Amino acid sequence: MSDTPRQATILTIHGPNLNLLGQREPEIYGRTGLAEIDAKLRNLGHRWAVEVLTFQSNHEGAIVDRIQEAADQVDGIIINPAAYTHTSIAIRDALLALKVPIIEVHLSNIHRREPFRHKSLLADVATGQIVGLGVNGYYLALRALVDIIGTAPSTTV
Amino acid sequence: MSDTPRQATILTIHGPNLNLLGQREPEIYGRTGLAEIDAKLRNLGHRWAVEVLTFQSNHEGAIVDRIQEAADQVDGIIINPAAYTHTSIAIRDALLALKVPIIEVHLSNIHRREPFRHKSLLADVATGQIVGLGVNGYYLALRALVDIIGTAPSTTV
Amino acid sequence: MSDTPRQATILTIHGPNLNLLGQREPEIYGRTGLAEIDAKLRNLGHRWAVEVLTFQSNHEGAIVDRIQEAADQVDGIIINPAAYTHTSIAIRDALLALKVPIIEVHLSNIHRREPFRHKSLLADVATGQIVGLGVNGYYLALRALVDIIGTAPSTTV
Amino acid sequence: MSDTPRQATILTIHGPNLNLLGQREPEIYGRTGLAEIDAKLRNLGHRWAVEVLTFQSNHEGAIVDRIQEAADQVDGIIINPAAYTHTSIAIRDALLALKVPIIEVHLSNIHRREPFRHKSLLADVATGQIVGLGVNGYYLALRALVDIIGTAPSTTV
Amino acid sequence: MSDTPRQATILTIHGPNLNLLGQREPEIYGRTGLAEIDAKLRNLGHRWAVEVLTFQSNHEGAIVDRIQEAADQVDGIIINPAAYTHTSIAIRDALLALKVPIIEVHLSNIHRREPFRHKSLLADVATGQIVGLGVNGYYLALRALVDIIGTAPSTTV
Amino acid sequence: MSDTPRQATILTIHGPNLNLLGQREPEIYGRTGLAEIDAKLRNLGHRWAVEVLTFQSNHEGAIVDRIQEAADQVDGIIINPAAYTHTSIAIRDALLALKVPIIEVHLSNIHRREPFRHKSLLADVATGQIVGLGVNGYYLALRALVDIIGTAPSTTV
Amino acid sequence: MSDTPRQATILTIHGPNLNLLGQREPEIYGRTGLAEIDAKLRNLGHRWAVEVLTFQSNHEGAIVDRIQEAADQVDGIIINPAAYTHTSIAIRDALLALKVPIIEVHLSNIHRREPFRHKSLLADVATGQIVGLGVNGYYLALRALVDIIGTAPSTTV
Amino acid sequence: MSDTPRQATILTIHGPNLNLLGQREPEIYGRTGLAEIDAKLRNLGHRWAVEVLTFQSNHEGAIVDRIQEAADQVDGIIINPAAYTHTSIAIRDALLALKVPIIEVHLSNIHRREPFRHKSLLADVATGQIVGLGVNGYYLALRALVDIIGTAPSTTV
Amino acid sequence: MSDTPRQATILTIHGPNLNLLGQREPEIYGRTGLAEIDAKLRNLGHRWAVEVLTFQSNHEGAIVDRIQEAADQVDGIIINPAAYTHTSIAIRDALLALKVPIIEVHLSNIHRREPFRHKSLLADVATGQIVGLGVNGYYLALRALVDIIGTAPSTTV
Amino acid sequence: MSDTPRQATILTIHGPNLNLLGQREPEIYGRTGLAEIDAKLRNLGHRWAVEVLTFQSNHEGAIVDRIQEAADQVDGIIINPAAYTHTSIAIRDALLALKVPIIEVHLSNIHRREPFRHKSLLADVATGQIVGLGVNGYYLALRALVDIIGTAPSTTV
Amino acid sequence: MSDTPRQATILTIHGPNLNLLGQREPEIYGRTGLAEIDAKLRNLGHRWAVEVLTFQSNHEGAIVDRIQEAADQVDGIIINPAAYTHTSIAIRDALLALKVPIIEVHLSNIHRREPFRHKSLLADVATGQIVGLGVNGYYLALRALVDIIGTAPSTTV
Amino acid sequence: MSDTPRQATILTIHGPNLNLLGQREPEIYGRTGLAEIDAKLRNLGHRWAVEVLTFQSNHEGAIVDRIQEAADQVDGIIINPAAYTHTSIAIRDALLALKVPIIEVHLSNIHRREPFRHKSLLADVATGQIVGLGVNGYYLALRALVDIIGTAPSTTV
Repeated sequence: MSDTPRQATILTIHGPNLNLLGQREPEIYGRTGLAEIDAKLRNLGHRWAVEVLTFQSNHEGAIVDRIQEAADQVDGIIINPAAYTHTSIAIRDALLALKVPIIEVHLSNIHRREPFRHKSLLADVATGQIVGLGVNGYYLALRALVDIIGTAPSTTV
Repeated sequence: MSDTPRQATILTIHGPNLNLLGQREPEIYGRTGLAEIDAKLRNLGHRWAVEVLTFQSNHEGAIVDRIQEAADQVDGIIINPAAYTHTSIAIRDALLALKVPIIEVHLSNIHRREPFRHKSLLADVATGQIVGLGVNGYYLALRALVDIIGTAPSTTV
Repeated sequence: MSDTPRQATILTIHGPNLNLLGQREPEIYGRTGLAEIDAKLRNLGHRWAVEVLTFQSNHEGAIVDRIQEAADQVDGIIINPAAYTHTSIAIRDALLALKVPIIEVHLSNIHRREPFRHKSLLADVATGQIVGLGVNGYYLALRALVDIIGTAPSTTV
Repeated sequence: MSDTPRQATILTIHGPNLNLLGQREPEIYGRTGLAEIDAKLRNLGHRWAVEVLTFQSNHEGAIVDRIQEAADQVDGIIINPAAYTHTSIAIRDALLALKVPIIEVHLSNIHRREPFRHKSLLADVATGQIVGLGVNGYYLALRALVDIIGTAPSTTV
Repeated sequence: MSDTPRQATILTIHGPNLNLLGQREPEIYGRTGLAEIDAKLRNLGHRWAVEVLTFQSNHEGAIVDRIQEAADQVDGIIINPAAYTHTSIAIRDALLALKVPIIEVHLSNIHRREPFRHKSLLADVATGQIVGLGVNGYYLALRALVDIIGTAPSTTV
Repeated sequence: MSDTPRQATILTIHGPNLNLLGQREPEIYGRTGLAEIDAKLRNLGHRWAVEVLTFQSNHEGAIVDRIQEAADQVDGIIINPAAYTHTSIAIRDALLALKVPIIEVHLSNIHRREPFRHKSLLADVATGQIVGLGVNGYYLALRALVDIIGTAPSTTV
Repeated sequence: MSDTPRQATILTIHGPNLNLLGQREPEIYGRTGLAEIDAKLRNLGHRWAVEVLTFQSNHEGAIVDRIQEAADQVDGIIINPAAYTHTSIAIRDALLALKVPIIEVHLSNIHRREPFRHKSLLADVATGQIVGLGVNGYYLALRALVDIIGTAPSTTV
Repeated sequence: MSDTPRQATILTIHGPNLNLLGQREPEIYGRTGLAEIDAKLRNLGHRWAVEVLTFQSNHEGAIVDRIQEAADQVDGIIINPAAYTHTSIAIRDALLALKVPIIEVHLSNIHRREPFRHKSLLADVATGQIVGLGVNGYYLALRALVDIIGTAPSTTV
Repeated sequence: MSDTPRQATILTIHGPNLNLLGQREPEIYGRTGLAEIDAKLRNLGHRWAVEVLTFQSNHEGAIVDRIQEAADQVDGIIINPAAYTHTSIAIRDALLALKVPIIEVHLSNIHRREPFRHKSLLADVATGQIVGLGVNGYYLALRALVDIIGTAPSTTV
Repeated sequence: MSDTPRQATILTIHGPNLNLLGQREPEIYGRTGLAEIDAKLRNLGHRWAVEVLTFQSNHEGAIVDRIQEAADQVDGIIINPAAYTHTSIAIRDALLALKVPIIEVHLSNIHRREPFRHKSLLADVATGQIVGLGVNGYYLALRALVDIIGTAPSTTV
Repeated sequence: MSDTPRQATILTIHGPNLNLLGQREPEIYGRTGLAEIDAKLRNLGHRWAVEVLTFQSNHEGAIVDRIQEAADQVDGIIINPAAYTHTSIAIRDALLALKVPIIEVHLSNIHRREPFRHKSLLADVATGQIVGLGVNGYYLALRALVDIIGTAPSTTV
Repeated sequence: MSDTPRQATILTIHGPNLNLLGQREPEIYGRTGLAEIDAKLRNLGHRWAVEVLTFQSNHEGAIVDRIQEAADQVDGIIINPAAYTHTSIAIRDALLALKVPIIEVHLSNIHRREPFRHKSLLADVATGQIVGLGVNGYYLALRALVDIIGTAPSTTV
């Protein structure tokens, strides 16, 4: 897409209970912890010429606060809203106020889980979704944002 | 994420009306035609040590036939079922009989479209979904399958 | 409405089981066979300066194929989608890719039949509907298309 | 379709707000006013050997009254019930008491509008519907009634 | 069930299309006309020491007007709201403002008819309902009101 | 409404918990006990030349048994199915096998109570319903059956 | 908001049964009658440099008529549609044809009442709603219209 | 039931993915392949004096075509519509045009599976259903058809 | 399907109102009475080396009692739960406690009847269903159980 | 929580299939039989100065009968309505006629089971519910009733 | 509307994302920032003899905390709950514990937005709502509270 | 129920607005404050050989944080989630990650309150529920956990 990649910033937001990744139900969520994921995202960002910021909170309001702060700081958002996917209009509204591409990530395939997890309140606000691909979903989301923003040659994928 | 990548085959299935890609409503679907997408998938497959087969049909039955044939041929499936996403239990059943990873791709963000497009009859049968990322969704899906199958070092993403 | 009628082409598509018209349940569908309807449509077309093409299939995919072919050939479409009215998003998508006026015809009054026949997946994609007027619905639809396209003076109706 | 056309009467009923036709939202409803439509219906009736009566009211009760009066006067009814399409069981009951063919007309394609406009309380009581064809819908409805009643040779369509 | 019957007034309201009783679909509604019903109600009223007033309109607003007028005139209401049973909150509100017993009457068994006729918007506002007993329903309703008001010895029933 | 009244039999069935009438919640159900109601029904029956049988049970199966027995014994049924109104298809089926008029009675206005009491599984199987008129509902129902059967001059009402 | 207030006209429409205000259920609706409200609206209008017209009817059709008449007369509408809030698409359509600001007023808090009162068919057609503030709702609505139209300095509120 | 069995023909239709029987998920569907089932049906037919024809397709349209062809050829139909049970109105319409008994067979108990499999679009068009009895369901269906048609003494069951 | 058939016992349960079979609505349910059906079942059982026990009750509780007693007595159950199909979780629970195959039989095609008859509370608890095949359904169910239990060579069907 | 405990009586009602406790599905319901539970309840009652009566039936009507008898006998009710929890309005009505505290007990967690078990028709009639705590639920319910009635010092819990 | 206005306090609560007012989507929400609104509210409060406190948070819990604190401090509440309107029962419960009048304000017309914004969980807890009137809604709400509390002569409106 | 009670820890979590217990609506929630409840829980814990920790917050995120901390600290959880019962999937997910028994407590009978309070998002994640028994519900829940964990002889209940 862009011929001249430029330095950009991507914010990755992890919703409630994702701080337990790697510890909780590893047979479902895998053994990779959040710190490891964040490190890998930063490394990949480095390779693809974007800065990657990360944030986790169990508090809906704190996530709203963080998204608001991001308004003038970031060029794209990766968000795994976890439980708030299905209950938070406040996060939806915070995202609506941004002008950057947003990718919603879910580690597990939410369509195989309880019916109330099938409906995302954010899906139509996001640019796209990556669902069910485990922690790889985060890395693919970063790749997709990099392709949209054009910081690295798209032939890398 | 195998250390010793092996030769594998991925079948990409394009559902009804996708043969018109690049010609129809380019402001929505982009200007890339199906042949170009298929060629790029084959090229990427070459780089990542998988063979990529492609298939398009407007006929639900023909897609079922093709999936059945694939049973002993392929190591993964990328499927953009288009309109059949929401109406075909026959394709669902054909996919259920396979034992390989399946990634469902949608070019546009189906959650922004008519309500009947929000529900996929295949979503819980697929391993994962990539939605709303345009033709890039196909390439990311291929990358994800390669990572699952382990034909190339996962650090490539 | 045009002052200078021009030569144009109208494609008439008959959905599944309509090849049985005149043979099946004549007390409901009347005794006129499909060939007779098609002939009358061609005759009326001749009078009103349009060429009328006709097509019938029991195969959803074949109907999609035919609509795609029509993209650069026709100036209007009459479609009686029969059973596919209520189940085919693929036909909807094929019609969405066209830029010509479309009239949906139903021989019987679908609102008097089973509840699943009350909802058409095509109704909002078509320009208009003519319902419950028997085979005359086809001829009125042709007249309406001719009026929209302007191949004959509208005072003829 | 009778060989010997006879003199007959058709009542055309226009529901609430249709007196504003041509003035209100002309980009949607066109620039033809109700008087002009009624005149054209009478002219067409003259050509096809039927008398055309017309009536408009914003009052549900007045429409019921008019339908009741019509019981022994008319051979067919064209009704554009407008807003009452979706709310008036009283008009439905009045129509149910008649024994003549009834054609329901909607100028705009109600299936593209608010969901509460998709359901007609009259559709299964009418003989048929003509939807989305603008003011031409009235003329086609008249033609259809003439064909049913047999006042003019059906080859005229 | 007062020991000392007093002179009282009962208003009977007939909703839309009930002016056609006896003429319309006599196999369903019987051959008794509204005038005959009203006369019999007055006669029975005479026997049971109540004055019976009657009113019919096809206009929802006129029925509301009549109920309002009745506020200080009547000791009970018999209402067969016909089609307005299912659509008129205005009549419901008018009845809510009264303090007298109200009996809702339906000639036919509405529970055997279209689903939209199963729900009455007035049923919980009325004191009671008498359904499906034909014109006798009116006479039984009058008897019931007389028993409630106590104008005649209740042993008469 | 026969000129020559004949001797006939009416079965009155009281559903579950109605044996408590007069004891339970008298502010709602009144102070009249079931024995008193049954006696009055028999007296009225005597006056109107019908024999009145009565039956109460808390057991759905016992009510089904009693209705079956009635098949060749009775000329009409009054049934207050109480709680079984809303849950018993077995009683519905037993009533369906009879050929006599059936009147469903409810003492209280079921439309003012919990939503699950608004729907009767028997309403379309009965000839008619009398709702909300207290114990008087039973007597009016008897009168209505007498009028249908024609055992007494209908002018008595 | 305008610096130069100009003379303007506001039409206030009161729906069915509102002519009983002050008489009916004063514990709910208060003791202020409609004439008093209208007088106060005219006085306030005088102070704020707008002419206030008022209209009440129990007839849906009459309200539609009045709105149509208003098309070229008024600069804003206050409407308390009462029962028609929930049932009248005809009034909705009449309002849709206007180009002036519309404020919907409800005296009582409709969200505390029966579920069918929670949904307004007009809410998305109106500019705004004022609900549950008693007769003061009318005066606040007038103030709001004055502020929108700019006939008086907005600092007056 | 007939005393004089006559030669008759039964068509057995297997829907999509049933060509995989015996290969796919044998723990669910058993190890019997379609050829074996068809052979056994022909053998049983031979014993019971009916000719058994068999047909399988993954194509909805091809199944419609085959049913149409059968119109004058067969005396009964056994159909396991598989996935099309829940999505094909076209097959329903094709069956509706026949005048012969039809038995719908499902190998597995569809009521234990996904909710969308609980509803058959064909159930009310078929004479009867046999569900959940594995491949034996086909043989029992054949027996049932033979009993209905009367080609063999019914005491054989 | 065992080579060495063993003596086994099958309990057949007939639900409410089935004691009227042959008497009630013979045009629907046929003229065969319950005693005749039971006798034929015992005869067939004799031929196929199983003992057949039969039971009918109109009482839900009695059916539960009978199923409980059967726990250690029977090798299979045929149940036509009639009205309790749609309302009895108690019977469902009683069946759930058994470990033997269960076949649910309905004489008429419940999918052609009232909507509340389309849903069986037992269907997913039973092994299978046989619907709409009249009294033959019982005999086919017995045959199916015999095949499952293996008391007779399966080639007999 | 009375200072002077008085002798009181508690009736424990066990619904359908609970007579099988300890025998049926012990991995779910545990190995404690009903007799043992009843004995323990009596013992605890002895310790806490209340008499405990127990009753089990598979018959809805018998449970209604027993509740009616209890009206003047008992000071509290523990009821595990089992399957009738979800289907019996008759038991609801019987409980409504009592004036004593009622505790609804479910051994298993009904919210983890089939959706139709999530809704209790009795829950709003009971004082409270204890769900999912196995047979201990009965003992806790007894303790709770004792605390409400005040027969023993509440510090015992 | 007290004759002797007294000093009172009004708390205004702004929900999530309202701190962005004036910056975010000004074409929708206008260009007035929250500080400016709060200042104007304080000024108006000064004129009308009430103290106005203001509070904004993106945290549901913080809003609950603030409402709890207000219990003994304030005489009325203006709340624009923004996204929490539709998801927060906790805020509902906090408001329920207060005894002061509450006015719910929405800047935009929520009935024109996504369906999930049409339902307020607070509407029946508030005294009233003002919807769709932009920032003026806050000032009108303050005026309404002042009128209810009676701190200023009501003739000011 | 262990013979050798061991020291264990129980965490009691009180959701939003429960800090107001005893102050708010005492006629509903009683006059016991939270501190008093917590003290009594600790006392009972002391008697039954468990340590009781308590926590209250109005913040969903804080409750999630506290549950996460508890992962390795506690042997059981008592949670009264109050308003978050019906809206918090985040708390559900936090509880899902624990391996200890959980008892959900509600002071009031939520089934008698607004419909949105009838559904708990936590009920199927908890071991059991105790509903409607006031503050005693907490003590019974503690007793139940003690019995499950086995810290005290179960005969104490």
